[in-house]
Amino acid sequence: MADAKLLECFENPAPRRDYVIEHVAEEFTSVCPKTGQPDFGTVTVRFTPDKLCVELKSLKLYLQGYRQEGIFYEAVTNRIAEDLEAAMRPRWLVVETHWRGRGGIRSTVRVELGRRPA
Amino acid sequence: MADAKLLECFENPAPRRDYVIEHVAEEFTSVCPKTGQPDFGTVTVRFTPDKLCVELKSLKLYLQGYRQEGIFYEAVTNRIAEDLEAAMRPRWLVVETHWRGRGGIRSTVRVELGRRPA
Amino acid sequence: MADAKLLECFENPAPRRDYVIEHVAEEFTSVCPKTGQPDFGTVTVRFTPDKLCVELKSLKLYLQGYRQEGIFYEAVTNRIAEDLEAAMRPRWLVVETHWRGRGGIRSTVRVELGRRPA
Amino acid sequence: MADAKLLECFENPAPRRDYVIEHVAEEFTSVCPKTGQPDFGTVTVRFTPDKLCVELKSLKLYLQGYRQEGIFYEAVTNRIAEDLEAAMRPRWLVVETHWRGRGGIRSTVRVELGRRPA
Amino acid sequence: MADAKLLECFENPAPRRDYVIEHVAEEFTSVCPKTGQPDFGTVTVRFTPDKLCVELKSLKLYLQGYRQEGIFYEAVTNRIAEDLEAAMRPRWLVVETHWRGRGGIRSTVRVELGRRPA
Amino acid sequence: MADAKLLECFENPAPRRDYVIEHVAEEFTSVCPKTGQPDFGTVTVRFTPDKLCVELKSLKLYLQGYRQEGIFYEAVTNRIAEDLEAAMRPRWLVVETHWRGRGGIRSTVRVELGRRPA
Amino acid sequence: MADAKLLECFENPAPRRDYVIEHVAEEFTSVCPKTGQPDFGTVTVRFTPDKLCVELKSLKLYLQGYRQEGIFYEAVTNRIAEDLEAAMRPRWLVVETHWRGRGGIRSTVRVELGRRPA
Amino acid sequence: MADAKLLECFENPAPRRDYVIEHVAEEFTSVCPKTGQPDFGTVTVRFTPDKLCVELKSLKLYLQGYRQEGIFYEAVTNRIAEDLEAAMRPRWLVVETHWRGRGGIRSTVRVELGRRPA
Amino acid sequence: MADAKLLECFENPAPRRDYVIEHVAEEFTSVCPKTGQPDFGTVTVRFTPDKLCVELKSLKLYLQGYRQEGIFYEAVTNRIAEDLEAAMRPRWLVVETHWRGRGGIRSTVRVELGRRPA
Amino acid sequence: MADAKLLECFENPAPRRDYVIEHVAEEFTSVCPKTGQPDFGTVTVRFTPDKLCVELKSLKLYLQGYRQEGIFYEAVTNRIAEDLEAAMRPRWLVVETHWRGRGGIRSTVRVELGRRPA
Repeated sequence: MADAKLLECFENPAPRRDYVIEHVAEEFTSVCPKTGQPDFGTVTVRFTPDKLCVELKSLKLYLQGYRQEGIFYEAVTNRIAEDLEAAMRPRWLVVETHWRGRGGIRSTVRVELGRRPA
Repeated sequence: MADAKLLECFENPAPRRDYVIEHVAEEFTSVCPKTGQPDFGTVTVRFTPDKLCVELKSLKLYLQGYRQEGIFYEAVTNRIAEDLEAAMRPRWLVVETHWRGRGGIRSTVRVELGRRPA
Repeated sequence: MADAKLLECFENPAPRRDYVIEHVAEEFTSVCPKTGQPDFGTVTVRFTPDKLCVELKSLKLYLQGYRQEGIFYEAVTNRIAEDLEAAMRPRWLVVETHWRGRGGIRSTVRVELGRRPA
Repeated sequence: MADAKLLECFENPAPRRDYVIEHVAEEFTSVCPKTGQPDFGTVTVRFTPDKLCVELKSLKLYLQGYRQEGIFYEAVTNRIAEDLEAAMRPRWLVVETHWRGRGGIRSTVRVELGRRPA
Repeated sequence: MADAKLLECFENPAPRRDYVIEHVAEEFTSVCPKTGQPDFGTVTVRFTPDKLCVELKSLKLYLQGYRQEGIFYEAVTNRIAEDLEAAMRPRWLVVETHWRGRGGIRSTVRVELGRRPA
Repeated sequence: MADAKLLECFENPAPRRDYVIEHVAEEFTSVCPKTGQPDFGTVTVRFTPDKLCVELKSLKLYLQGYRQEGIFYEAVTNRIAEDLEAAMRPRWLVVETHWRGRGGIRSTVRVELGRRPA
Repeated sequence: MADAKLLECFENPAPRRDYVIEHVAEEFTSVCPKTGQPDFGTVTVRFTPDKLCVELKSLKLYLQGYRQEGIFYEAVTNRIAEDLEAAMRPRWLVVETHWRGRGGIRSTVRVELGRRPA
Repeated sequence: MADAKLLECFENPAPRRDYVIEHVAEEFTSVCPKTGQPDFGTVTVRFTPDKLCVELKSLKLYLQGYRQEGIFYEAVTNRIAEDLEAAMRPRWLVVETHWRGRGGIRSTVRVELGRRPA
Repeated sequence: MADAKLLECFENPAPRRDYVIEHVAEEFTSVCPKTGQPDFGTVTVRFTPDKLCVELKSLKLYLQGYRQEGIFYEAVTNRIAEDLEAAMRPRWLVVETHWRGRGGIRSTVRVELGRRPA
Repeated sequence: MADAKLLECFENPAPRRDYVIEHVAEEFTSVCPKTGQPDFGTVTVRFTPDKLCVELKSLKLYLQGYRQEGIFYEAVTNRIAEDLEAAMRPRWLVVETHWRGRGGIRSTVRVELGRRPA
């Protein structure tokens, strides 16, 4: 099960300025809680760090934690956003998920926290 | 016949924030009420949930209900919007339908309910 | 000759809201009044209905009425707009025509009636 | 149910020569016999006529007959080929079906009857 | 009605050698003999002349003659080939027609006369 | 663990002729036996059936069986080929796997059994 | 009027070997002898020289000579081929002309002289 | 190790106006400080100079200094920005890094210093 | 320095049949022995295994060994081919290297050992 | 002036096998001997070495020698081929030049020496 404690952070090397980091994980998979079928998608994380930045390998391991977890698209998108916010306390954070078709329907979910920097 | 009662919802996992969900159903088909010929199109549903989110498999089954129904493009687009609004009471909702050519004419209908979030 | 009486309308299924319908007819042909040569183009009709919506098959038959008619690009675009306005009394209407090359020149004509909805 | 008797033919206007006709039906739908879910695909028919050619509108109506029929991809492809062969007795015939994804799997079936003309 | 006598030829300026000429008419229209609906397509003519070449403007006028004629795809393709063969007596001739969708079905017909030059 | 017994077959509806079926599964995932990291790829199955055809939903479930299995690219490709051969006894069979990058390296494996039909 | 005497040649710098030279003139224009309208096209010249190569600027000036000349597509293509053959006596020569649409018809003419080198 | 002293500048030839310079280094490589694995990416530097411009060859040698250095994406992006700012004192500076996938995740970092010129 | 002993192999899971494996390493870098400048390229390895297959992670580590090594394109391509041949004794092997521009020149080297399987 | 003595070679690291090397120089420039205008093009060199390989930096310097030299496309292509053949004595050699437009005409020259390896 996905474990927010896997998320490791390192100190933001430039805390005095606003800048933007984006990570795009194209190999995300979880399980549909209704049908038990696997879901496949892409997770995009975009943020302006404050004191901390998420470490990339820990992000990969955290995302792999959803591999066997039954969870709706809306819930996983919000939970990733919340876990990243709790871990990093970023100034601004967007999480977008894009899902391959399921029953002929493609889906997208987008969550934004904080205020986009100027 | 399309039955709004097929639409099942689950609790919005993040009701305190505005975020956006989009479902694109590329395998929609209904019947022209005038000629009896089948129509083929794509249905896009985009919304900001309030207390409820529509469950994806139930949305698929609901949309399949139009397979044998004679209905104009304009009516089906508005009815999907109204059925989804009644089921979810979203903060904002857009339904767009894009139809393959019929008699050399391609059509699009777009309905928007509520106010787009900031 | 193109006959506005061919245009049939049905009741707008959602008269209480503003929404947008677009029909794109890619197989339009008329005749150049100057040279007698056939013209080929695409006719796009975009509108917000009030009480009535134009029925698609009747629109197709109406547009086919220009097949043997000698008429300038500018005239046909305005006449389609006027005939549709008379038939539907829409809240807003755009008619655009895009013409294939004639003597190495491609042309476009755009007519807009009423006020674009917010 | 799909009815081969719907297929009407007209006399080949040029029976003394080998030539090739291709019809591509992009709006085909049938039903999965295992899950009851609708299938969507494209049907391509390519042939060299002998004495008869299939009439296009009758082909459309024949293909629409599969709309409610539960049938495997392999069976529908072979049956279309056999029905067309029985109706037209062509010198050469290919039927290809391309199916949209189902459970993350896209499929294609190709049947060829007779010998391809030189 | 399409009139083969409209086809004018001029003397092949280089009758002692085999060479290839191709004309692609993208604005062809005729009428479906079954439904009375207009058909739209592209006509490609490719040939090696012997003593005569078809003159381009006369080819255009000849093809415009089908504008009001009810004729099947297969018949029109063969008739164009036969009329051009009668007019030019070319060493080799191909006529291909590509038709826009009708009832969701796109069609192609291809006729080849004589032997393709080395 | 992937279980060949999940593969169900149905009778080939046209055993007297050679024809070709292709299934492309774009959402395949297994586990690297060396690093424990998930692998993602596409599995293409192409064959000419003899007496039996593999049923699509059973193929999907069989392929999902690799989700938690540690197995090399080369081994999984050969095992899918062998399991399908044992289940269907096809006249001809190709299995191709295309793998997303791992450590900056993209891989492909291709196995062919039997003789390609004429 | 186009004047073959404008074509200047220089000595082939490597007459002992077969090699290939291609010149593509994309800004060619002449006049339709029937309608007096300008024609626009591309002229491609491809050859294996023997003792002489055509000089590029002289080729440009020669081609510009057709600007005011009324001449059919077939004639201009053959004449360019003949003028170049007379000027260079190449081992192999191809001249292709591609013409922009005229009355909705695009044309191509291709002439080949001599035998293509191994 | 990357050494900011390698950065050489020359006098801005047009200090009285704001203009924009962009250098894109597509062959950047450094080392992941966590795994010791090499990272590959593209570094884009865009700026409006004040009194000085960075010399291109010195920029190349400076960037090559990261080849064996273990450093996070975020840190290297900020350090390049800071070193360039210290060397040139530009009016405006953007440094963007785009990294090839690592564990199925592609990353981007963007740092902007000063105010973008009008 | 690149060390062939890093190459680990595992047993070919299907030694009785000829099949094809391809690995494409897009993040290869070595050093020019003449100028000391880094070179960047892509290494493609394609083979039919006999008793052994190279393990992917060991291949990655082996290729990383060239990171600080001064070696010509031609030499590195041949050495990779020879090291892989010594390690795996494949039935057939191709190594291709594609190099990014250096001094405005892009290069490719291709080595093939053994006979390509039928 | 271009000086063949600039071409340096190093020993072919794998003289016992036939393999292929390709260098593509995209920044070639020389001068038109007729007009004095600069010409810009791409030079592709492809060969199977025997005892020697041309060194890349020396090839670059050699090609730069044409920068101020007035020379026809045909001559420069043949001379590069001859200089490389004299310097390397390759088993097989191709030199292709592609020239940007001059007076609206794009040109290509291709020279091949020796026999292409199996």
